[in-house]
Amino acid sequence: MGHKIAVLPGDGIGSEITEQAVRVLRALDLDLEIQTAPVGGAAYDAMEHPLPPSTLELAKKSSAVLFGAVGDWKYDSLPRELRPEQAILGLRKAMGLFANLRPAILYPQLANASSLKPEVVSGLNILIVRELTGDIYFGQPRGVREVADGPFKGERQGFDTMHYAESEVRRIAHVGFQAARKRSQKLCSVDKSNVLETSQFWRDIMIDVAREYPDVQLSHMYVDNAAMQLVRAPKEFDVIVTGNLFGDILSDEAAMLTGSIGMLPSASLNASNQGLYEPSHGSAPDIAGKNIANPLATILSAAMLLRYSLGATAQADRIEAAVQAVLELGLRTADIFEAGTRKVSTSEMGDAVLKALK
Amino acid sequence: MGHKIAVLPGDGIGSEITEQAVRVLRALDLDLEIQTAPVGGAAYDAMEHPLPPSTLELAKKSSAVLFGAVGDWKYDSLPRELRPEQAILGLRKAMGLFANLRPAILYPQLANASSLKPEVVSGLNILIVRELTGDIYFGQPRGVREVADGPFKGERQGFDTMHYAESEVRRIAHVGFQAARKRSQKLCSVDKSNVLETSQFWRDIMIDVAREYPDVQLSHMYVDNAAMQLVRAPKEFDVIVTGNLFGDILSDEAAMLTGSIGMLPSASLNASNQGLYEPSHGSAPDIAGKNIANPLATILSAAMLLRYSLGATAQADRIEAAVQAVLELGLRTADIFEAGTRKVSTSEMGDAVLKALK
Ligand SMILES: CC(C)[C@H](C(=O)O)[C@@H](O)C(=O)O
Ligand SMILES: CC(C)[C@H](C(=O)O)[C@@H](O)C(=O)O
Repeated sequence: MGHKIAVLPGDGIGSEITEQAVRVLRALDLDLEIQTAPVGGAAYDAMEHPLPPSTLELAKKSSAVLFGAVGDWKYDSLPRELRPEQAILGLRKAMGLFANLRPAILYPQLANASSLKPEVVSGLNILIVRELTGDIYFGQPRGVREVADGPFKGERQGFDTMHYAESEVRRIAHVGFQAARKRSQKLCSVDKSNVLETSQFWRDIMIDVAREYPDVQLSHMYVDNAAMQLVRAPKEFDVIVTGNLFGDILSDEAAMLTGSIGMLPSASLNASNQGLYEPSHGSAPDIAGKNIANPLATILSAAMLLRYSLGATAQADRIEAAVQAVLELGLRTADIFEAGTRKVSTSEMGDAVLKALK
Repeated sequence: MGHKIAVLPGDGIGSEITEQAVRVLRALDLDLEIQTAPVGGAAYDAMEHPLPPSTLELAKKSSAVLFGAVGDWKYDSLPRELRPEQAILGLRKAMGLFANLRPAILYPQLANASSLKPEVVSGLNILIVRELTGDIYFGQPRGVREVADGPFKGERQGFDTMHYAESEVRRIAHVGFQAARKRSQKLCSVDKSNVLETSQFWRDIMIDVAREYPDVQLSHMYVDNAAMQLVRAPKEFDVIVTGNLFGDILSDEAAMLTGSIGMLPSASLNASNQGLYEPSHGSAPDIAGKNIANPLATILSAAMLLRYSLGATAQADRIEAAVQAVLELGLRTADIFEAGTRKVSTSEMGDAVLKALK
């Protein structure tokens, strides 16, 4: 019986980039049952909801979801619950995908792409472990209400609730410590415990879980300082673990340090290693349909899918090696093109990866 | 009758850097009544509270506060409400300092100090307008409680409340628009309105206030994207307006883009232009007492004090020109030293600024 993989291309460049990743997956002699469904704006257009029940059903019964990207300006005026981004929030919550792994890797062949000096970023390899189903993203109550007392009494007030329960922090702590154990034995937990109760609670639990990992060195950093240190000396980080909101900000900042966000995959896992895999970049509606988008982040997301949800380590390694090989050959999509390399289209990049796989 | 200025040196290098700024203020032929009081760890040591009532009283009855820096590892084990940072939060709240102005300026003479490529940051001049008395920093309720229902029912949970009332957003919006009007007529409001109700509320009010400033072009950006764009192309920003939490993170990130955070002042103002002025950097206990810290951020904070709280524009201009002049002369404290310049101590830098004022 094959592994079920749901492919959700989404909007903008989503279908072009997932198409190349699917070609790569199919070329690997694995027994995969691949099914595609609409999500995001495309799903709203076709079925009046960004995450139609049939799409959610398919995702839930699959071993893994390969996700393209969602979003387009044209949906900006929809009520929030119908906007494309709600699909990704809905999938995370419904599938319990609490652990988001976001590598920020600077490929040596692309060192020039960074806006930072080469000596500051060359060899950069950070893993951000972001909690993905808790925090202020989903906390209740939230909304707009009337202020009950104090200086703004009687006014309207927008409000949200940030919170983390003990076991939510514990399980993401374990993901962080285990990742650190496989890498440099260093884990940096980022919070704002000088101001937030949620963060103080988070920090206390991190310290408690650390006792189970005497081989890993735990440090703590405030989120404002982390945002600074990522700019100053990013290579001082190895594995970072943080909450949903801070992780959203820091993982994007870290990704951009590489200058080649078109190369960066991500994985979002639940407790049974079911996962959703997507590139770190967005749907780029401005270049959609032109066959010029970079499919490598999605192809590398497919490699993460094989590694984490299917346990197909050898095949994941093969994909990653093939991507290295095409970079080595000097092939570049427009986003990472520079003088002295060869500019290729989305599908040509897919062709090249397929060839390098052999 | 002179202007009352409260000087709160604080911890670490605080007393060394404020000393130089006070020398500069005294050299300007203004009628100033300068009084000093303890704050932070130093106040805790002397009076068992980081913000003793006498210090708060002095600050409140002054036209402006010149603040050094607070914090030291040795207070880390104190309960949160006695830690040095609480002094700064307490002053902001008690004095109603809702508008934090944080310039991120890269002085041409210090272009090499940045970890970013010169072409990405040369000429950088961003102003971040951060709301400073609302948001999740002070929102109630907050604490640790038992989860009432759902999958974590019965567990302990850390929680905080994010909120903004309508007039809180309006008044910081006006500060942002007015700053933009004096600069490039461009204002970027940063929020996370695709996820947070508070942010959607914030954005709606920004759009409403924008109608009073038809000459200013308002744009919106999600905070994760802002964290990326600051790394990718910081010069595309001019004035950014954002909430307390996002402003904390982004203003530090922006400051570090310059690589010379020892140069960056800040102002925190209330509705009557009473203000607290402090360097953007911390208390650096590791180099305290060595006469090597950079006093320029504090000296430039004194310039902001003259400009915003005392309306002494000409004298503020003189200080800023003097700082430019000493950089031009090649004088550098250790943090900004590079080959071909002359390394000077904290007090020598103060001497040089005084001399350049003449
Ligand atoms: C689209 C948005 C809701 C989402 C988030 O904030 O998590 C995105 O920024 C991400 O990081 O995947
Ligand atoms: C010390 C801390 C409470 C403070 C903050 O978070 O506001 C600091 O980071 C700042 O930006 O002034």
